[in-house]
Amino acid sequence: MSPFAGSARSTETWQHIRVTRQDGVATVTLARPDKLNALTFEAYADLRDLLAELSRERSVRALVLAGEGRGFCSGGDVEEIIGATLGMDTAQLLDFNRMTGQVVRAVRECPFPVIAAVHGVAAGAGAVLALAADFRVADPSARFAFLFTRVGLSGGDMGAAYLLPRVIGLGHATRLLMLGDTVRAPEAERLGLISELAEEGRADEAAAALARRLAEGPAMAHAQTKALLTAELDMPLAAAVEMDAATQALLMNSDDYAEFHAAFTEKRAPKWQGK
Amino acid sequence: MSPFAGSARSTETWQHIRVTRQDGVATVTLARPDKLNALTFEAYADLRDLLAELSRERSVRALVLAGEGRGFCSGGDVEEIIGATLGMDTAQLLDFNRMTGQVVRAVRECPFPVIAAVHGVAAGAGAVLALAADFRVADPSARFAFLFTRVGLSGGDMGAAYLLPRVIGLGHATRLLMLGDTVRAPEAERLGLISELAEEGRADEAAAALARRLAEGPAMAHAQTKALLTAELDMPLAAAVEMDAATQALLMNSDDYAEFHAAFTEKRAPKWQGK
Amino acid sequence: MSPFAGSARSTETWQHIRVTRQDGVATVTLARPDKLNALTFEAYADLRDLLAELSRERSVRALVLAGEGRGFCSGGDVEEIIGATLGMDTAQLLDFNRMTGQVVRAVRECPFPVIAAVHGVAAGAGAVLALAADFRVADPSARFAFLFTRVGLSGGDMGAAYLLPRVIGLGHATRLLMLGDTVRAPEAERLGLISELAEEGRADEAAAALARRLAEGPAMAHAQTKALLTAELDMPLAAAVEMDAATQALLMNSDDYAEFHAAFTEKRAPKWQGK
Repeated sequence: MSPFAGSARSTETWQHIRVTRQDGVATVTLARPDKLNALTFEAYADLRDLLAELSRERSVRALVLAGEGRGFCSGGDVEEIIGATLGMDTAQLLDFNRMTGQVVRAVRECPFPVIAAVHGVAAGAGAVLALAADFRVADPSARFAFLFTRVGLSGGDMGAAYLLPRVIGLGHATRLLMLGDTVRAPEAERLGLISELAEEGRADEAAAALARRLAEGPAMAHAQTKALLTAELDMPLAAAVEMDAATQALLMNSDDYAEFHAAFTEKRAPKWQGK
Repeated sequence: MSPFAGSARSTETWQHIRVTRQDGVATVTLARPDKLNALTFEAYADLRDLLAELSRERSVRALVLAGEGRGFCSGGDVEEIIGATLGMDTAQLLDFNRMTGQVVRAVRECPFPVIAAVHGVAAGAGAVLALAADFRVADPSARFAFLFTRVGLSGGDMGAAYLLPRVIGLGHATRLLMLGDTVRAPEAERLGLISELAEEGRADEAAAALARRLAEGPAMAHAQTKALLTAELDMPLAAAVEMDAATQALLMNSDDYAEFHAAFTEKRAPKWQGK
Repeated sequence: MSPFAGSARSTETWQHIRVTRQDGVATVTLARPDKLNALTFEAYADLRDLLAELSRERSVRALVLAGEGRGFCSGGDVEEIIGATLGMDTAQLLDFNRMTGQVVRAVRECPFPVIAAVHGVAAGAGAVLALAADFRVADPSARFAFLFTRVGLSGGDMGAAYLLPRVIGLGHATRLLMLGDTVRAPEAERLGLISELAEEGRADEAAAALARRLAEGPAMAHAQTKALLTAELDMPLAAAVEMDAATQALLMNSDDYAEFHAAFTEKRAPKWQGK
């Protein structure tokens, strides 16, 4: 645990999500399979708070985000979210939409790689959660649909209009966000939306294997790779190069860097400690 | 018509372009087929002013930009533009180049999706006009050539050095802008420069169908998707997420969002009004 | 030679690199083949200083960066660099990492296109050097590995976390920088990491041909294309369009632009002078 945790108490009770930890890997499973893991107000809030808690736990080195049942996540629940927002005032609407965006920021800013394990539907907010992850491990049943315009909203929801052009280019991103069409696994792979194509039914397994590999590796190096990739999307080249220099100078003082050199010299595999 | 139009009068008389409006779709056709729709000073100025006018017409929900005859647009006219610029002073040269850039800004900033219908040549300024559009619907005869260096100018003309790397990546964009080579439809599609490949001779028809689909849909949602895609290329993630939140809160007060929910509840198709 | 060179003297003595100049093409060959062209402290410093010198030589219009022997460049030398950094203090570590970043900035900011001729291994700093080039001409033996995390460092080294997402998109860039896996030529081409695929054993030859073509062309137009591509990655659309306008107005006063028009009128090929 980081020494910089505050007074807010941790909880182990989360709504519609299941959390397990093993050997440095946290697995968060969206667990409302009868509703295709449709998100409720509580599920958004819990994902935001859970990611904040895990970010303070030194032991978490990789996170898998998966969906139970027939698909990954069908997005915001039509009745519980769309229906409810129709009765909200302006301040409440802004609060709600800020909360969903905070989940995406938490995924991008947490100090460990996040792997979305996608099978079946990843729609609406579910598609953006997968998009915000560092890796999308998907099986051939995966299909993505940024279907916000289909409900009369902007395709730029939860950072999608920021992230998607940076992953697949502005042309394809415009098409996907404007039309809300479904993109199946073969096209998603061609566009660069899938990081690793798993065998049918094996997305969770392949995501777990990748998470284990990352957790067993130099965790601080991975964390700083993610931090730089995230920050340098918004930074000029000169500032990025300076940030890289400071980061590498920092990591050249780390135990893991010395361990690499010792292991190389002794012709053995390094024992990474993540510090 | 927006109530915020000023005193400047509209015109229906445009140079070398033809404008029609039907069911929310404006179709702008470059109409100088004997010169492969080469652009003149007047054509640039008219495209800029026409886009400003159409942006104030509430009734326009999608725009098709097409070329009459054998190709889409061969770019600036060698004699009427290159020849004339050789006699210009520094202030005139800057004015001219600002005007061409204003056309591209108008295409990116107008409040409706723009669909370029490309067959045959899209060269020079013609290639950039297509690039600035939200969708490029092209048939197999389409070929793109950013041939500015071939005339001794920078490949970064009218925003091309900004837009092209964001559509196809920096590596391919460097090759295309530096060398000015022609990119034919199969390569253009592979690079992500084509949004939809139409059958031979059917680019106009396919573009019209897409425009109709967009015009019949939730126009305000489309407009805000385009506005966010455009703005968030130049914005950090945190600001983008905040802009998305404000936009969605706004649209959750729109008639179209309520209509989606009513239609979903009544198990019927929504009747979009674009407000 | 630019009239704006200072008092610092030029040198023709470089460490582990070989420099030749012919017909406007400078060829820089990493020449430490027994170590797969692994970089030393001196090699980084010399590449930085050489690029500064060549930038002041008006006669250089294109640069080829190649590797002698079995591969392009295996990156920083494990013993001479990693071993030595373990004994450095914080200020020295920052100095070293700033120096490597300055090489990448010099490649991006020099006023002529840089062509990496890649065969065999391009690993670590070698992969970033190739990435920073404007063109990557590679043969089927080429393989890229951004293997920084494998030694316990951040994948964001020398601007890689800035450049790679802008070349191949954030998804693939995350995978390559986080895992340090080797990407062979076919995948590299699919991702857009290769500009031109040469025949086996012909990367140097194809790079030289491209350099000759560029050197014989309108060199100032190429230089300003590169400058705009580099600058506009970090600029909003409105500023980019304004920068393009000023640049084109400048080049419309150039000799090469007038020469294009004269040649076109006289139906002959233009004689480019690069001014």
